[in-house]
Parts: sequence; structure tokens; C-alpha cells
Amino acid sequence: MTATEQSATLLATLGGEFYTSAAVFAAEQAEIFENSWICAVRAADLAQPGQFKKVQIGRESVLVVRARDGLLRAFLNVCRHRGAQLCTESEGQVRRTLRCPYHAWTYALDGKLVAAPNIVALTDNTGAAIDRYRYGLVPVALTEWLGYVWVCLADVPPSFEETVVGEVTLRLGDAAAIDRYGVEGLKLGHRIVYDVAANWKLIVENFMECYHCSSIHPELVDVLPEFARGMAAQSFVGHGAEFGSDITGFTVDGSPGFGTLPGLSDEQDRRYFAITVRPSVFVNLVPDHIILHRMYPLAADRTVVECDWLYAPDVVAAGHDVTRSVELFHRVNQQDFEACERTQPAMSSRAYRHGGVLVPAEHHLAEFHQWVVSRLGMSDGCARG
Amino acid sequence: MTATEQSATLLATLGGEFYTSAAVFAAEQAEIFENSWICAVRAADLAQPGQFKKVQIGRESVLVVRARDGLLRAFLNVCRHRGAQLCTESEGQVRRTLRCPYHAWTYALDGKLVAAPNIVALTDNTGAAIDRYRYGLVPVALTEWLGYVWVCLADVPPSFEETVVGEVTLRLGDAAAIDRYGVEGLKLGHRIVYDVAANWKLIVENFMECYHCSSIHPELVDVLPEFARGMAAQSFVGHGAEFGSDITGFTVDGSPGFGTLPGLSDEQDRRYFAITVRPSVFVNLVPDHIILHRMYPLAADRTVVECDWLYAPDVVAAGHDVTRSVELFHRVNQQDFEACERTQPAMSSRAYRHGGVLVPAEHHLAEFHQWVVSRLGMSDGCARG
Amino acid sequence: MTATEQSATLLATLGGEFYTSAAVFAAEQAEIFENSWICAVRAADLAQPGQFKKVQIGRESVLVVRARDGLLRAFLNVCRHRGAQLCTESEGQVRRTLRCPYHAWTYALDGKLVAAPNIVALTDNTGAAIDRYRYGLVPVALTEWLGYVWVCLADVPPSFEETVVGEVTLRLGDAAAIDRYGVEGLKLGHRIVYDVAANWKLIVENFMECYHCSSIHPELVDVLPEFARGMAAQSFVGHGAEFGSDITGFTVDGSPGFGTLPGLSDEQDRRYFAITVRPSVFVNLVPDHIILHRMYPLAADRTVVECDWLYAPDVVAAGHDVTRSVELFHRVNQQDFEACERTQPAMSSRAYRHGGVLVPAEHHLAEFHQWVVSRLGMSDGCARG
Repeated sequence: MTATEQSATLLATLGGEFYTSAAVFAAEQAEIFENSWICAVRAADLAQPGQFKKVQIGRESVLVVRARDGLLRAFLNVCRHRGAQLCTESEGQVRRTLRCPYHAWTYALDGKLVAAPNIVALTDNTGAAIDRYRYGLVPVALTEWLGYVWVCLADVPPSFEETVVGEVTLRLGDAAAIDRYGVEGLKLGHRIVYDVAANWKLIVENFMECYHCSSIHPELVDVLPEFARGMAAQSFVGHGAEFGSDITGFTVDGSPGFGTLPGLSDEQDRRYFAITVRPSVFVNLVPDHIILHRMYPLAADRTVVECDWLYAPDVVAAGHDVTRSVELFHRVNQQDFEACERTQPAMSSRAYRHGGVLVPAEHHLAEFHQWVVSRLGMSDGCARG
Repeated sequence: MTATEQSATLLATLGGEFYTSAAVFAAEQAEIFENSWICAVRAADLAQPGQFKKVQIGRESVLVVRARDGLLRAFLNVCRHRGAQLCTESEGQVRRTLRCPYHAWTYALDGKLVAAPNIVALTDNTGAAIDRYRYGLVPVALTEWLGYVWVCLADVPPSFEETVVGEVTLRLGDAAAIDRYGVEGLKLGHRIVYDVAANWKLIVENFMECYHCSSIHPELVDVLPEFARGMAAQSFVGHGAEFGSDITGFTVDGSPGFGTLPGLSDEQDRRYFAITVRPSVFVNLVPDHIILHRMYPLAADRTVVECDWLYAPDVVAAGHDVTRSVELFHRVNQQDFEACERTQPAMSSRAYRHGGVLVPAEHHLAEFHQWVVSRLGMSDGCARG
Repeated sequence: MTATEQSATLLATLGGEFYTSAAVFAAEQAEIFENSWICAVRAADLAQPGQFKKVQIGRESVLVVRARDGLLRAFLNVCRHRGAQLCTESEGQVRRTLRCPYHAWTYALDGKLVAAPNIVALTDNTGAAIDRYRYGLVPVALTEWLGYVWVCLADVPPSFEETVVGEVTLRLGDAAAIDRYGVEGLKLGHRIVYDVAANWKLIVENFMECYHCSSIHPELVDVLPEFARGMAAQSFVGHGAEFGSDITGFTVDGSPGFGTLPGLSDEQDRRYFAITVRPSVFVNLVPDHIILHRMYPLAADRTVVECDWLYAPDVVAAGHDVTRSVELFHRVNQQDFEACERTQPAMSSRAYRHGGVLVPAEHHLAEFHQWVVSRLGMSDGCARG
């Protein structure tokens, strides 16, 4: 106790309105999700030319398609003529073109308008030719990394290296560390989609801290005993949580998993690393598989989370049973999302008007809060007001 | 290509916000649907004194009732005392009065307050008599045409002749053309109600153009081969689309319909005429029947459409099978409404912020867009901004 | 008729917007329901230490709990750490503490923070001790009366005596009248929860007047014949409606009830008294039981009503059949709530923009309207504007 007799003050979180306001959510969609690189599709899901997937990015429906030249491209899912959605199914395959079923405007897989019925040579009524790219599909910036297609709706996308790759490097402490897992060469072993009645930031905050691990994750704490102390792997640069001495694999019962991925260093074996790639990706690294979460916020109080379990190609090819490793993180997911759903309703309470508090083991969450506030162009005082 | 090397520009549609904004929809309800003549009820549905129907006009629940004197009248469906809805059922029949079930205030079928329990001689507590019309049901303007009851919520309704009749005359090019069908004397053969997840203006635009006919209406194009060229009958004054040479009736398979309606001119036989009566009625004329659509917009993205198939009285009286003619336009309706529902979600995309484009075959839609904009009291620049 | 030949004018109600506007509803939650004493829980429902109930008060989830010292306390249902709801079940029992399941922050039943994992001696990261009440549960003011727990979310609650007790005394005309029923000692015989699609004020207005009794309450009018004249017991101070001469009990068929409660005066026997305790409680007194309604407004057009039937302890202990007395007011409730639900949709009509009218038998409702307007800080002109 100090001489002035003041009692200690804990660090504050964001105020409750950040988790409930439709206006804040709309600003987040515009300033964060439509302005950042977003992990959209596993590239291997679009192996063949003409294959496409429809993904919700911010408030936009985006088509990711593999063109005839083998390259992936992304477009807004809107016909330039009268605005019909080109694709209403979540995925599919076409031969050479995307054809709007309403008036048959037809686009090449690079977006160019190649046909429109009854417009002779695509001229307007003065006879002048129309620009087939100007009236082509609206393109969306796209890159590939870790075997995923990342897209960005911004007119001028931020640097992928500095944002996405930079966050992974900053967490692992070493630019080469992620490469050793060879994530782009892994195969999908299992995928589960969760529909969570909670704000996306509650899911991020939950993923970033481990103060709750001893309360709600008994299976995970059995595998990673240090998590019982409440310090998240993400509190430290380059730290991976070590498996318990009697644990033989990252599975629901600690039983053996599969062979260690070939490129890993000794410091990466028998360790669990967790990385938050803001705004919406979580990467979980263990010696024999990777778990990757993608979040799609649909409303201030609703977020869809797609979770992939990736394994070495031979594990998937041989049809090995991945149930026990899937089950471990599936339970963690369920436990986490239930906690987030229990928290969401209290965000509108007067008790949370100025937010809650962070204990020392959660102090790294404050940086996430500051990042959100700065992305929304708010001052810190306003955000916590 | 001109000397300045500019490429051609297509005519723009309304911007996407016109189809999604709750504020625009509220303005449309106030300025368009509550300020125009709206086709409410087939008069023959209210044949007997005391019969009533409840209809949604703009944001108001309206009762249309046939009074003891045989005349039709319309009122707001609200008791003047404490506001209970007089009728909650969609239709019914009373003897001499409409009686509010809450406190038993009772109104004659001309709207006059005729009884209120325990108010001696309908005086207030000073003993002064109350005005039985002032506290009677709120009347709504009403007229009859084509066998339908049209109502208008405006304090000063526009001229029915200049608006409703005027639009029909303008399209057919001849004030007497519609009269020759004798629509008011026809009988209802079939009615289907559709609940469409799309803005009402998308439904109007779809009805007005035929550029989509070859894409989505195979049965209709079989009957009306010129529709394959994409020019709507509505692009021309007085033009009816001609039946194909091997077509014997306006039916789903081109098989014979019923006898040509007695008053038709030769120019009206073997022809399909389509008329849009803004804001919410479509009239389809063929030699042996009439198809009339009424739209009731419930939200920016939801519209109920009621479609009547009308035949000569002897066709209905004899119980002739109308299935094949009903099936043709029922399929057209389903095809059209599915296209509108596919379009609605894209209206909120940034790709449609400034609207889409009109091809020459759709240029007459621009006049509809200008009408909407002017009715909302917006400038054109604002509307397309 | 006066010399100026004006016809009589009836007193106006509140305008329709008061019953439909989300903004008005939010203001009512803040200024009325979160600023008044609200009847929350029957105290006997929390007989044992550790028993708790979760109640919605205004926009807040409130926990009412009986502590180890036998006293009742109320708290916001929000963990002070990261905002999870402490209890998601509607009721339950704990041993000595309320423990948040997310991070295991643990509170004594007086709200004090007694444990938080991994925070040594509850210090912050400077080593300073944190204030265990500052970070304890947020307390809510609480008192007991009539055997119920009443809570108030206001920082400075109004006088319970002047508001709640004052309203009962004002209605009964005598401070001792309510005491003679010994309501706090009665036992719960039956409870029904109604979910009503209507604004809470429509339910209050309906309860306050009896002009509708002859229209919709045949069973009640059989028991209380004077109600056929439309004057509510609440129109007069100290007036109880007298049972009909052939009525032997306050039951659905007038058959005998139970013994008269021991303390009643002769003036209270064979009488029905009704009291509105604003904003949300109705008390109904008859010689052998009490019916108490509590309203919980959830939206401008939705209100949950919980209705308790209370009897002398020996009636409940002996397991006497209370069906016939429950059935009488259950029918009245159903009839009333159906009338309110029929009224709610018309509140948004232009016909009710400036409200409806009050007949002389309803003039006491105007005082309720003025109370609402003054609580919302509006001028009367504004309210009726």
C-alpha cells in the first residue's frame, strides 16, 4: 500500500459498446475486415480450373476461382449489368466462363466481359464499343500463403509481408520458424464450422490468453501442464508450451499422434505454438499437425468460425484415423465458444459500460484493444469513454 | 470509336441503396404507396353487403367493406376509441355494423359511430353531444375500375384518370383498347399469392423488360417467339407480342385456350399485351384471359405479390380446366421472382453502389427510375450519387 | 350544446409513437424501469442460503441471492473481470460463493471478491492490494414488502414508502388496509407466466379501466355485477367491487372459495380491490386470496407478465384444489392480453398518431399518461404532439 493509501488499479478492457453496437460493427467491417488481408479459402480446395468458392469478406460476397491459366483470382460476386449474384451456391465448377443466369452476361475467368446477348459486338446504342474490362467483374486483390488464398478488398492493400507475415514472425521470433512446418504442402484432414453467438473480438481475446485454461480446458491442460499457470504461449516471443512428460501426442488423451513434420527444429518438437494473425486467423502449430481458424463476423453478436486440421500428405493419403487429435481442439473450441457466448450478453450491462479489467497474465490483450481503436480511427479516450 | 478515344458508356440504373435502405423504403411507403391509387380487392370478392376484406396499403391496415346500400367503402382498420384493430381476420362478413371487440364501440358500414356503451346519447362529460363522424372510422378514398377496388390514402388523391387510366392508355395507345377486354365482367379462375424476398422495384424492372426472357422463360418464349430477341412489348406503344405460328393458345404447352373474349379487335387477337400501372399493378392481356398482379411491399427486401387469372364468366361457370393457362404464367412468375431474389443480396455490394447498367433493350426502365426519384422528392444527382 | 356550437371533445390518450418507438422504449427502460422500485422475486422462493434467482430489470440481468447470514442481496449478473454472466440458468443454489465459470473469479454472497486464480494475495502487478469490494459484484438496492423482494437500479433510489407503499395507501384510502391481508405470510398456490405481444402501457391501461369488462370478461362480470356498468374499482379511493348476491366465492363459477383471511375488516369481505403499483405491479385483493402481477417489458411490443396466486398457508399445505379461483383470473388475463395484442398493431397507424380518446369512465387513465410523460422528462405538449 502506498503512502497515499490508494488501492491498486487493474488495466481496463474496451467498453461494452465495442461488442454490441451496430455502428461499431459497421465501422469494423469497413475499416478492418474490408481493409486487411483476409484468409479466404484453402487453395487446394480449388485444384481444378473452373472451380470456385464463394466467401463472405466483410459485407461483400467474394468469388475465388481458379482460371484456365491455373492462377487463382477473386471477384465481387455481382453481375455488372443489373446486379444479380453470379453464384448463389457456396462452391462449384464451371468450364470456361461465369455466366449470369438472369440476362446471360458472360465473363471469362479473368473477369473480362466476353458476351452479352443481343448487343452487337458489345457496342452501346451509339455504336461505340464498350470496354470489356470496365464492364467486367470487379477484381479483388489476392495472394497465396501457407496454402491459403488471402484476399483484400482495399483499393490499396497494405503490405502482406508487413502485416500477415510480420505478425507470424513477431510471434515466433524468427522468420524461418513457420516455414519449417511446410504448411502449404499439408493436406486437410478435417474441417468443422462453428456458428458462435458472440462478437469476434471476444473470440480473439479468448484465444490470446490462457488465464481461463485451468477453468475450462481440462484436456488441454493435461497435455500442456504449464497452461495451468494461466500464462498464454502468446505472452512471450518465440515461446511454445511444452508437452507434459507423460504426453506422447497432441491428442485428447495424450496418446501418440503422427510423425513429426520433417523440417522441424528440435525447439519445435513437443511444443505447441499459437499465433493470432489479426483480424481473423489463428494458427496453432504442433509437431504433427496444424490447426488453423478463420473467423467470419456476421453481426456484432455473431461470428462464424471455420477450423481446419492439416496433416502431412501421407497421413491423409493413408487414411489414418485423425479422430483423437481433432477431438482435442474441437473440445477446446467448444469450451472457448461457450465462454464467449456466456460473455456476450453482459457486454450491454452498465457494469461493463467502461469495460472489465485485465490481470497481469492478460496484459498483452491491451495491445489488441489499442490496435482495434487505432484501426477505427478513434482516440483511446473515446474508445474507453 | 470516336476521335477522343472514349469508350462507350451504358446508362446507369438506380444505386444499390435504393433497394436496401430502410429510410428509402419508409419514404417510398409515405410518398408512393400512401400517395397513389393502389389496387386493393377484386370487387366481386365483396359481393354481399357486410362482406369485408383487410388489405395492407403502405404501412396501413385498410378495411374494404360493402355497405348496406351496396356501395363499397374503405376505412383505416382502427377503432377511434383506444385503437384496437376492428378486424384481425383477413376477410369476413358482418350484418349491419363493425363492432370493436375491446369496448364495443360500434360503427355503421358508412363509418359513422352509432353506439358506445354507457355514454348516454353519445355525450361527453359536459353533456355536449359528440360528432358521430368525427369519432367515426377514418375514411379512405375509393374507386372501382376493371372490376377492382382501388384505394388512396392521400388527403388529396391524384386524378385516377390521369394516373391509373392514363398509364394503361399510354401503353396501349388507345383509350378504348382496355375496354374491349371487358375486364370488369370477368370471373376469377385462379389466384396465387407469392412471398418474394426482393425489393418491389426489382419486380417492376423485371416485369418491364424482356432482355431476360431468353435466359429464364423457355415456355414463354415458345409461345411468343419475338421475346427471344429481348425487346419487351412495353418498349413500344400499342405493341402486343404475337403468338408463334404453331401456337393455338396462351398456355404452358401452346395448346388451345378458350374462346376469344367477345369485344376484341383483330389487332388484339393472338397477341400478348403487358402494362405496368405504377407503382404496383401489372396487367397482362391475352385473347381469352387476363392476368393481373398486385404487389404489397412489406420491407425493403420483401414484397407479397397476389396474382389473379380472370376468364369469361361462362368458362368459370362451366368449370373448364384452366390449369394449362395458369401454369404458363405461374412458371413465368416463379422464374421472375427467383431472379429478383438472386439480385436482392447484391444490391448492398460496393459493386452496385452506383447501380448497374441498362442495355438499349432496357432503356425504358430509366423512365421508371426517374419517376421513383421524382416521387421521393430527390434530385437525379442525389439518387444516382 | 354551447353557444359557439362546438361539438364535444373527448380527452386524448398518448400518441401511438409512445407504444411503438424503440427510442421511447429505451427512455422508459432508463428513466422508469431502471429508476423505480421493481418487484423482482417472491422472497419465499429463496428460502435457503445460497439460493438465487436471475431477473430482468430494465435492460439489466440481476441476481437476487440469499446470503449465509440469511439476508437477501441483489447484484448485476456480470463478472467484474471480463464480463461473463455469472449465472445463465434462471435459478439455482450455491454453497458459499458465486464463481464465474470463465476464469474462476469468486465472490462471497455479499458480493466481495474473495478469490482470483494466480493473483497473489489479490495484488496488481505493482504489488499493491486491490480493493475486494471495488472489484466485487455491483450491488443493487433491495427491500422486502408483501413477501416480495423489490429492487431498484437507481444510484439514489426513490423513497419506497412514498412510491410503492404510497400508491397502495392512496388507492385503498387507508395505510392499514393492505396489512390486514397479511400478504407476506401467504403461500404461492399457483403461478402462470404470459408472453404478451403488446407494449407494457397497454397492459397497465387495460388493468386500470373496466369499460371493457362487459365486452370481454363475462365470468368476471358474473362475479362482480357492478363491473357491467364499466366503472373500475380503481376510479374511486377505497372502493372494492362487491360480489353478486348469489356469489359464494371469487371463482370461475362463483362457487365457494376458502376461508376469509383472518385479519380482514367487514368492509373487505365479499369485495374485490385492485391496485396498480407503477410501473409494473398489479395487486388484486379478494377475501381468501391475492393475485399479484409483475410485468417485465422486453421490447416496445413485448412484455412478459408473471402472475402469482397466493393463499393462506393452511390452504396450500393441505393441498386444497385452487383450480376454480385460479381459472377465474387466468381467463381474465387471457381476455385482457388478447385485447392488448389486438391493439398493439394499430398503434403505428396514422389514425392513432395523436392517440385515441378516453370516455368519462376512463378519465383516471390520463393521470397515468401524465406520469409517464413526466418520468420521461417530456412536456405534455410534446408527448401528445
